[in-house]
This record gives sequence, C-alpha cells and structure tokens, in this order.
Amino acid sequence: MRINPDSSALTTSVSAAEAADARRSIRQFDPAPLDEAELLELLRLTARAPSAYNVQPWRFVVVRDDQTRASLAAAAYGQQQVLRAPATIVMYSDMADALERLPEAAHPEMPEDKRRAMVDSLRASFAEKSIAQREAWGLTQTNIALGYLLLLAESHGYGTSPMLGFDASKVKTLLGLPEHAQIAALVAIGRPDEEGFRPHRLPVESLTELR
Amino acid sequence: MRINPDSSALTTSVSAAEAADARRSIRQFDPAPLDEAELLELLRLTARAPSAYNVQPWRFVVVRDDQTRASLAAAAYGQQQVLRAPATIVMYSDMADALERLPEAAHPEMPEDKRRAMVDSLRASFAEKSIAQREAWGLTQTNIALGYLLLLAESHGYGTSPMLGFDASKVKTLLGLPEHAQIAALVAIGRPDEEGFRPHRLPVESLTELR
Repeated sequence: MRINPDSSALTTSVSAAEAADARRSIRQFDPAPLDEAELLELLRLTARAPSAYNVQPWRFVVVRDDQTRASLAAAAYGQQQVLRAPATIVMYSDMADALERLPEAAHPEMPEDKRRAMVDSLRASFAEKSIAQREAWGLTQTNIALGYLLLLAESHGYGTSPMLGFDASKVKTLLGLPEHAQIAALVAIGRPDEEGFRPHRLPVESLTELR
Repeated sequence: MRINPDSSALTTSVSAAEAADARRSIRQFDPAPLDEAELLELLRLTARAPSAYNVQPWRFVVVRDDQTRASLAAAAYGQQQVLRAPATIVMYSDMADALERLPEAAHPEMPEDKRRAMVDSLRASFAEKSIAQREAWGLTQTNIALGYLLLLAESHGYGTSPMLGFDASKVKTLLGLPEHAQIAALVAIGRPDEEGFRPHRLPVESLTELR
C-alpha cells in the first residue's frame, strides 16, 4: 500500500446526472501532476462497481512517468492525449487473478463453509470455459467499472478520453501484464484544458421499449 | 416517442462518489409504479455513456406489466426481485441495429462525405468478424452504460439489482428480441424497501500499480 485513499481529497463538482450530460472526451490537459491520493480515491470508488459473483476482475496501471508514457503513446498508434495527459490509466481485466483471489473477494461475514463452497463452485464453472471465453467474460464485468470511472472522473472535475485503439500485445509487454489480460481501455485523465465537443446520441425513445 | 424526458423530474440525492460508496444490491422494493418521465430521463442519461466509434449498441426494454414480469421472473429462474420491483430493465446489446443506424449516430456536424466514409469503414471492419464476435464486442460497450445506469440510479434514490442469472433464449423470445442480441443484465429497479448489505471489495491498492 502506497498511500491512504482520502475521500476528502475529492472535490465534488457536479451531480452524477449533470456529469452524464456534460461529459465530453478531452484530449488536451493541464500537464500538472495529479494528486496521488485523489487518483487512488477515484480508483477506489471505481472498484466499488458491482460485478457478477463479486469477482472484481478489474486491475489498473496508472502510467505517469515520461518514459512509460512515451512508450504507451507509441503502442497507442501515437495518440497524443497519452503524452498530453499527466496520467493514463490502463484498465484491464484479469480473470485468472480474480479467481485466485476469490476467497479474499468473498464477504467477510460469509461463513467459512459457504465461502469454500462458493469458491469451489465458481472455479469449477469457469474451468469449463476456455481461457479466451473466461477472459472475454471478465472484460464485460470490467467495463461496468469503466462506466463508473468515466462518470466519477467527470463528476469530480477530471477530463478523460477512453481509447480502444492500441496494440494490446505491445501494451501488455510494456507493462508486464499477463498474456491473457484483456485491456478494457486506456483512459487518459487530467484537468481539462479544452472544452471538447458535446457528443451526439441517438434519441433514448428510439432505444427503449416501455411495456 | 411516448413522453418527453424531463430532467427536472429527477431528484438528486447524493453525489456520484457518495453513490459509488453507498450502493448496495436491493431486492425489496416499494411496489408503487415508477414515474415514467423519471425512468426515461434515467435511461437518457445512461445512453450518454461513451462507446467506441460512438456505436451506442445499448437497447432497453422496461418491463412493468404483471404478466410480462411473471414470465420474466420465470425466465430468471424465479428470482423474486423481478416480481417485487415495479420495473425491471432488460438491457441488451444489438450491434446489427447499431451498425444499421450508424449514419444517424454520427455527429450532425460531421460533413456528409466524412460521415459516409466513416460508416462504410466501420461496417466493413465489422463485416470481417463473425456475428458472435461482433455481438460480444457490442456487449463490452453496453456494459459501460450499465455502469452509468447503476451509478445514476443510486445517485437519484433508486435501488437496483443487476442479474446475470437468466435463460437468455427465453428472455429474448418473451420480449421479441433478435437472436443475436446479447443481454447485459436484467436490472430490477425501484424505490428501496430494505437497507441491503454493504458490499465487500478488494483493497484498491492491491488492484493498482502506480508508475
């Protein structure tokens, strides 16, 4: 453990609803380093997201040092926001590690025998899947937390741009991630230094059936 | 279009950070019908979530009537929260529809020739994938919006329980969804009538590498 998360460090700016409405992708940032306690608090809150069976497969690498940022930008086909942002969060899913840590992930109030049965049953059920299937499933759960991260960041005055355009093998090699890891996104994050464009969305009525 | 979303209908209760910390799965609800304008506003905000290429593959069916709720509960292995909640949102991904609607999803300020090139290039790139691969990818993007929905609902005083335990074929048949649709979750939603258990999470420091 490096530092205590400190929720008082997070200055609330707008409500979740306002943040959802206001959020834009930001690619120009104030280059000043981010407060580490704030950043860790943001990730702690992100990791409060629910996941099926509470497996919590999400993992984070926060890239801040110049050399790693430069290599990460290269692995992301030269996307400039990786260089412009004071930090880029590599958010990935690791189901192998998540299954390993299931006993620890279980609620501490769960009786020992129930916990053991739950762990055994879940591991057995995932053992029936291929590694690719297992990790693809973990990625879906990790993206729930990605939604949390983007909304929480916006709500606390951070700009973000999630990126899916990168060479996954290069990113994994660079950061020493296991081969089976599934990267949900690289998320450039910092205090915004541009307004960004208000994104366009399909009308919700055209996506919704009420019955 | 059934009714205008009305953001003034949404009463903000807590900040996004407080909501992330406070959220619990809720399985007992006040059975009173939900305000339709509020519900639609919640979904509009959910659909503000970002997705790669702005494809917006998420779709919603809001199940409220007694008969469909009963059938949905049966397809969800009898999970009682479907019967107890005034509404269950079936959140699914439909990439076939999303690719069809790409021209409409593109930003209105995008010049016509750029829009056409973008649409053609994206459709060509997805045409190289199998239907299963394409829909699995859409599901990852839909789960970003699922994170939005769960956090927004909590932040506005709603309780939710997302469910992954259901017979997907039965749910699709019941609601007339296409066979290729990927269901992200059934989300029972309503005003909570229980406290729920505070969920346990792995320490964020153990999930995070700072560099």
